[in-house]
Amino acid sequence: MKIAIDAMGGDHAPKVIVEGVVKAREQFKDIEFLLFGDESRIREYLEDDTQITIVPTTEIITYDEEPVRAIRRKKDSSLVRAAQAVKEGEADAMLSAGNTGALMAAGLLYVGRMKEIERPGLMTTLPVVQNDDGVDLLDLGANAESKPEHLNHYATIASIYAKEVRGVIEPRVGLLNNGTEETKGNKLTKAAYTLLKDNPNIHFIGNVESRELLNGVADVVVTDGFTGNAVLKSIEGTALSVMSLIKKSVMESGWLPKLGTMLMKPALRKVKAKMDYTSHNGAILMGVKAPVIKTHGSSTPDTIVACIDQIHTIVEKEVISTIEEVLKNQHIKIDGNSELKD
Amino acid sequence: MKIAIDAMGGDHAPKVIVEGVVKAREQFKDIEFLLFGDESRIREYLEDDTQITIVPTTEIITYDEEPVRAIRRKKDSSLVRAAQAVKEGEADAMLSAGNTGALMAAGLLYVGRMKEIERPGLMTTLPVVQNDDGVDLLDLGANAESKPEHLNHYATIASIYAKEVRGVIEPRVGLLNNGTEETKGNKLTKAAYTLLKDNPNIHFIGNVESRELLNGVADVVVTDGFTGNAVLKSIEGTALSVMSLIKKSVMESGWLPKLGTMLMKPALRKVKAKMDYTSHNGAILMGVKAPVIKTHGSSTPDTIVACIDQIHTIVEKEVISTIEEVLKNQHIKIDGNSELKD
Repeated sequence: MKIAIDAMGGDHAPKVIVEGVVKAREQFKDIEFLLFGDESRIREYLEDDTQITIVPTTEIITYDEEPVRAIRRKKDSSLVRAAQAVKEGEADAMLSAGNTGALMAAGLLYVGRMKEIERPGLMTTLPVVQNDDGVDLLDLGANAESKPEHLNHYATIASIYAKEVRGVIEPRVGLLNNGTEETKGNKLTKAAYTLLKDNPNIHFIGNVESRELLNGVADVVVTDGFTGNAVLKSIEGTALSVMSLIKKSVMESGWLPKLGTMLMKPALRKVKAKMDYTSHNGAILMGVKAPVIKTHGSSTPDTIVACIDQIHTIVEKEVISTIEEVLKNQHIKIDGNSELKD
Repeated sequence: MKIAIDAMGGDHAPKVIVEGVVKAREQFKDIEFLLFGDESRIREYLEDDTQITIVPTTEIITYDEEPVRAIRRKKDSSLVRAAQAVKEGEADAMLSAGNTGALMAAGLLYVGRMKEIERPGLMTTLPVVQNDDGVDLLDLGANAESKPEHLNHYATIASIYAKEVRGVIEPRVGLLNNGTEETKGNKLTKAAYTLLKDNPNIHFIGNVESRELLNGVADVVVTDGFTGNAVLKSIEGTALSVMSLIKKSVMESGWLPKLGTMLMKPALRKVKAKMDYTSHNGAILMGVKAPVIKTHGSSTPDTIVACIDQIHTIVEKEVISTIEEVLKNQHIKIDGNSELKD
C-alpha cells in the first residue's frame, strides 16, 4: 500500500515526520511512503530511500492561514499535493500534522466525500480510564452545525471503524445528550435519537452524558460538530489543568510532598501518557473516499508511527469500502424534509 | 434577611442541611432561616430555635421524579413550599440540595422570571487553576435551546454578579465558541457575537474556547444550555477520571510510588478541593426575581454554609434589583425577528 505524507506539516517538520517514517518502514515492509515537501530538507534526515519516494513541493501551508483560501492558493504545498496524490489514486491514504482546517478542506475538495455522506466528520479515539478500551467521538468540529441524518451516518461509519480497526465486536453507540432519558435533548438530539433507534447497522444504547465519556459508557459517541468540539477541548483543558494543579500544589508544599512526587513520577507519567490520546492515534476525517488522518502538530516520531499503524489497519481491512457498501444499503437520504423544524 | 431552606433535599437530608444552618447562624447573625420539612426529623439535629423557624411540610420531591409534574403534584413538598415563601415575600432567597430540575421549575413557576428575561439560565462559578479567581459559566442546562438574545442577557446578568458578589472590577465576558476568531461559530454564536459586541453593559473580550475555561481566560463565559451542560459535565468527568487514573496507576505500581502518594496526599487533597467547585458555591438560577440556589446533593454542612454566605452577599448587595435596573435600561427585546434564520 502507498501512503501520502505531508512532510512539512507540524511544529518540527520535516525532521519529526521523516524520523517517524524511517521508524515505520522497519515495521511495515508492505508500505511505500510518498513524502511531499522540500527535498533537500527531507534528505537531511534520510539515509536511504528504501520504501520512500520524495515528491518535491515548493509551498507550505502554515497554522495561521485561512484553510480554504490556503488550499486554493497553495496548489504546490506539501498538504495539497499529498491530497491530490490520493485523489489520483497514487496513494491509498494521507497523513498530515499541519493545519487541521486546511487538511479537512483538502480532504473534502481533493479526496472527496463518499456518495452517501453530506458532511464528513472529524473523529478521534479517546481513552477509557478503567481499561485499555477507547471511545470514538465524532464530529469533533468539521462542521459548526449538524443535521440528525449526519449523526446517524456518523454512527454507522464509526461503528464499522470501531469494529474493524479497534476490534470491538459489537460497538455500543451512544448519542451525546444533556441527560440519559429518551425524552432529553434539544431539537437535533431528539430527532437524531429516533433515527439512531431505527438504524439497523448499529447497536444503539441511547443517550450518554459527557461526564461518562472516559468511563467506557459507549464505544462510539456521536454529536454535532459544535458540541463535540467544545467537549473535546474541555477534556483536554481539564486534564492539563488537573496535572498542572498537582504540580503547582506540590511546588508550594514542603520537601516531603516533593519527595513524594519524585517517587510517584513513573505513575504520573503513565497517567499523562494515557490522557495524551493524540500520541496513540490521529484524528480521522470520516466520510471521505480514503483515509485522511490528522496528527497533532507537536507529534513525535512515535506518534507518526502510531498513525501509520492506524492507517495500515484501515487500508488493510478495507474499511472505506466496507463503509461505502453499508451506506449504500442504509439509504439514509438527506433531503429538504429532513431540515429541523422550529 | 430571610432565607427559605429546603431541609429535605439532598443525599443526607435533613441532617446535613440542618447542621449547615446551625453552623451558618453563628456566622450570620442577621439571617433568619425558614426550614421547610419534616419537623420532628429536623428537630433531631436542632438544639434550639435561635434565628430558625421550622415550617412543617408533608411531602418530599425525590431525585428521580419528573420535575414539572413533581412540583405541580407535590404542593406541600419542602421544595415547593420554600419557593412559595419566596414568591409571597416571606423569604428573600431559597436554597435546596434536591432535584435540580424541580428547583428550576419551581424557580420559574413560583419565584418567577424577571420582566426582561425570557429564559433564566443556570450558572456556577468554576475554579481558575492559576489563582483564586473563578469563571462564571452559564447557561449550564436550564434550557436545551438558546437564542442569541438569551446569551446577551446572560452576559449582562453574570457581569453584575461577578462584580458585586465576586468583586471582579471589570468582568471580562467571553462567548464560548469553536475558535477564537470573530468569524468562527455556528448560527447561534455568530448572531450572539454581534449582540455582545454592542452590549454597553459588559466588557466583551470575544470568543473563548472551552480548553481555556479553567485558565482564567474570562471572568464570565456565556453559552447555550446544551453546550454548557456538555462542557460542565466534561470538566467534571475528566477531573474525576484523572484523579482516579492517578490512584489506579499508583495502586498498580510498587511500594515506592505508594509511599510517594502518601507523602503527596496533602497536595493532592488541595487539588481535589480546588476542583470540587460545588463545595465552594451553589449553582444559581439567573434571571428569576430572587436568588434561587442549588447545591450538590452530596453537600456537607460546610457546603451549606458556603451557599448561605453566597446568598447573604447576593441579598446584601441587592444584586437582583441591580440586575433588574440594568436590564430595564438595556432594552434587549425578544421578538419574532430575532429568530435564527437558516
